[in-house]
Amino acid sequence: MTNSQEGAGDMQSADVDLKAIGERARTSARTLASLPADVKNDALANVARALESRQDEILAANESDLARAGRDGLGAAALDRLLLDSKRLEGMADDVMNVAGLPDPIGETSELKMLPNGLRVGKRRVPLGVIAAIYESRPNVTIDIAALCIKSGNAVILRGGSEAFESNSALASVVRGAIEAAGVPAGAVQFIRSTDRALVGQMLAMSDYIDLVVPRGGAELVRRVADEAAMPAVTGGVGVCHTYVDRAANLDMAVEIVHNAKVQRPYVCNALDTALVHSAIAPEFLPRIAASWAEDGVEMRCDRRALSILGQSGDASARPATDDDWGQEFLALTAAVRVVDSMDEALHHIETYTSGHTEAIVTDDYGSAMRFLDAVDAGVVMVNASTRFNDGAQLGLGAEVGISTDKMHARGPMGLYELTSYKWTVLGSGQIRA
Amino acid sequence: MTNSQEGAGDMQSADVDLKAIGERARTSARTLASLPADVKNDALANVARALESRQDEILAANESDLARAGRDGLGAAALDRLLLDSKRLEGMADDVMNVAGLPDPIGETSELKMLPNGLRVGKRRVPLGVIAAIYESRPNVTIDIAALCIKSGNAVILRGGSEAFESNSALASVVRGAIEAAGVPAGAVQFIRSTDRALVGQMLAMSDYIDLVVPRGGAELVRRVADEAAMPAVTGGVGVCHTYVDRAANLDMAVEIVHNAKVQRPYVCNALDTALVHSAIAPEFLPRIAASWAEDGVEMRCDRRALSILGQSGDASARPATDDDWGQEFLALTAAVRVVDSMDEALHHIETYTSGHTEAIVTDDYGSAMRFLDAVDAGVVMVNASTRFNDGAQLGLGAEVGISTDKMHARGPMGLYELTSYKWTVLGSGQIRA
Repeated sequence: MTNSQEGAGDMQSADVDLKAIGERARTSARTLASLPADVKNDALANVARALESRQDEILAANESDLARAGRDGLGAAALDRLLLDSKRLEGMADDVMNVAGLPDPIGETSELKMLPNGLRVGKRRVPLGVIAAIYESRPNVTIDIAALCIKSGNAVILRGGSEAFESNSALASVVRGAIEAAGVPAGAVQFIRSTDRALVGQMLAMSDYIDLVVPRGGAELVRRVADEAAMPAVTGGVGVCHTYVDRAANLDMAVEIVHNAKVQRPYVCNALDTALVHSAIAPEFLPRIAASWAEDGVEMRCDRRALSILGQSGDASARPATDDDWGQEFLALTAAVRVVDSMDEALHHIETYTSGHTEAIVTDDYGSAMRFLDAVDAGVVMVNASTRFNDGAQLGLGAEVGISTDKMHARGPMGLYELTSYKWTVLGSGQIRA
Repeated sequence: MTNSQEGAGDMQSADVDLKAIGERARTSARTLASLPADVKNDALANVARALESRQDEILAANESDLARAGRDGLGAAALDRLLLDSKRLEGMADDVMNVAGLPDPIGETSELKMLPNGLRVGKRRVPLGVIAAIYESRPNVTIDIAALCIKSGNAVILRGGSEAFESNSALASVVRGAIEAAGVPAGAVQFIRSTDRALVGQMLAMSDYIDLVVPRGGAELVRRVADEAAMPAVTGGVGVCHTYVDRAANLDMAVEIVHNAKVQRPYVCNALDTALVHSAIAPEFLPRIAASWAEDGVEMRCDRRALSILGQSGDASARPATDDDWGQEFLALTAAVRVVDSMDEALHHIETYTSGHTEAIVTDDYGSAMRFLDAVDAGVVMVNASTRFNDGAQLGLGAEVGISTDKMHARGPMGLYELTSYKWTVLGSGQIRA
């Protein structure tokens, strides 16, 4: 049951029994692991339908979150992230159907081979088991993660942020009803009905019940999970994203891409933080991007050379960068700008300051594009595209559990495959070792 | 330089500069990552040749290890594991050539697709960077791990056990010379020339220089690495391996497989620990396996029913099992034996006691084989084969860095793929997000 009291910061947690939740998740995971694809897909179709048929209930819960957020003085951007309406619910239902439409990774067997001794060897994809997701803000994350976990045969324990508590709780309840009707145990999707922070610490100790924890939120949450989790964690979310505008860039394209990467959604991890601009085209490019960004109120933190070019063009929104601006994730309408004399200098800057999230080059030179792709070590490396495309749905994964900046297990947007492991299967006919 | 003093337990470590080793590894990894397959394969061919041409040097070092081991009173089995001779060096050279002959995983791009907006998306395989291997006993591990790391474009820092210190050191020096002659930086393979245990703790803190640590050795080492490592670790090596002899088993085959799994090399992780025997065939099977095992001196720790059957057949090597025997990794000529009434009971026993390493069934029943493959959650699940086949070389990986019992990143024997990550590459033509 929900114990939220409007206006109270934390909800009570006295009646949240994490051990019971863990046990239910473990039992449900066992059932889920062997469910055929059509049962899982039916369950997802039910979820998509329920997001429409039970929308009154969801929107009422969302209104309660919005009312509390208003009283707490949240800004317009935060309120917009929180808001659900018919159209957004429809978008969430579409995402669920996209996930349902993807091939089922479970049971796929790869690297199948017959060895000289007759052993038939393969690697068969299996679910990880129980996933815990600890996330903040936007309520659609509840649906995205639940859908990916069901499809990949994993049980999930969801722990959402306090701002969207009522919305997340209602969404999880809708999901549970919908999957149960299709024969998937409701225990496969459980939502922690409390925002007591102590519960996060307790969850992070439950390595017997949780096989993987994925934090999705700000740097503080990610750090806490990485430090405290007793089970494996895939961390990420912190994106210090560079776009290098090469001397051979198409400058019209470069202005569009660099503008879009900063402005289209400035508060997210795949937004541009630093533009590196080749000195040969900086005098033409910088005034153009400055004018384009100025329309959206972007503040530019410039190195000496960029500032000198922009000073000549009389741009008012540019000010000197400090050392802290390089490698900063701004999550705001702010961008650092630096002029470089070569791709080597750009690569060196990126290597020094990257968080391994998303890095891009704008160039019409084939060799430069290939060199950048080869040299840059990040989850997603792009040529002639906005860094904003580093996103599970945008890259064809249907949705995402998060975006990993780790190199082990999962890198970049985490979709179905990143929620699986494999087991080797060996079919013999009496083989023994000599 | 080597500071070993014969008879001294630990070698000095005063002149081991781990930070310098880490920096050399990092620099070499950058070079290695972009080396074409033929340079890496030439380097491996040089290593294989050098194992022959420099064998005097290697065997002299090995003799020094053997002499110390003899004075320290090591048993015959341990001495045999330590021993190198021309034939074994030839086998190691063959393994290196097998690794050279495998396809290069680096640069392989999978899941390539063209999205509706024209973005070309793919996942390109890249090296992890710097691997640290901390291992005990057999010197061939030095060569196996070095070969796999070179082929997969990773630098490696090797920290071998004290018993094989001189042998490992000589082998590493041969590898370094051989790869350097082919244009691979010698810093790609570095051996810690000290057995000071404090260095392990220092290595495990070097997350800036080491991307993955793999322990290969006993339970104590594995636990220490899992507990202390500041960087990702893939752990494993502890194998509590069951073989279930189904009621529909071919008993001749079952005796061969169960005998082989216990006896062929009893000191290793993929050796059988517990045989689970269906009650319908136990009266015929148990006396036969007891007789077969008796020839090799296997001690049987039996449940009440197995004991009663064997008691009637008058077998002397069987004694009652204690609770500690279930789930025990014996690493010796000892096996636990239990009679079960159904596959359900066998599956339940395995789920309770498995370490997730290797589990096998012997059966002629197709449905039972499939059910076992589906239900058992372990790195390698086998039908009608000896658990001893859970081994990188045996399963076609050329060699192995270790055998993972984790579910994240790598599971089962770790070969080339398990030493890689990927990066998403996105090729655009000016795409921005609406």
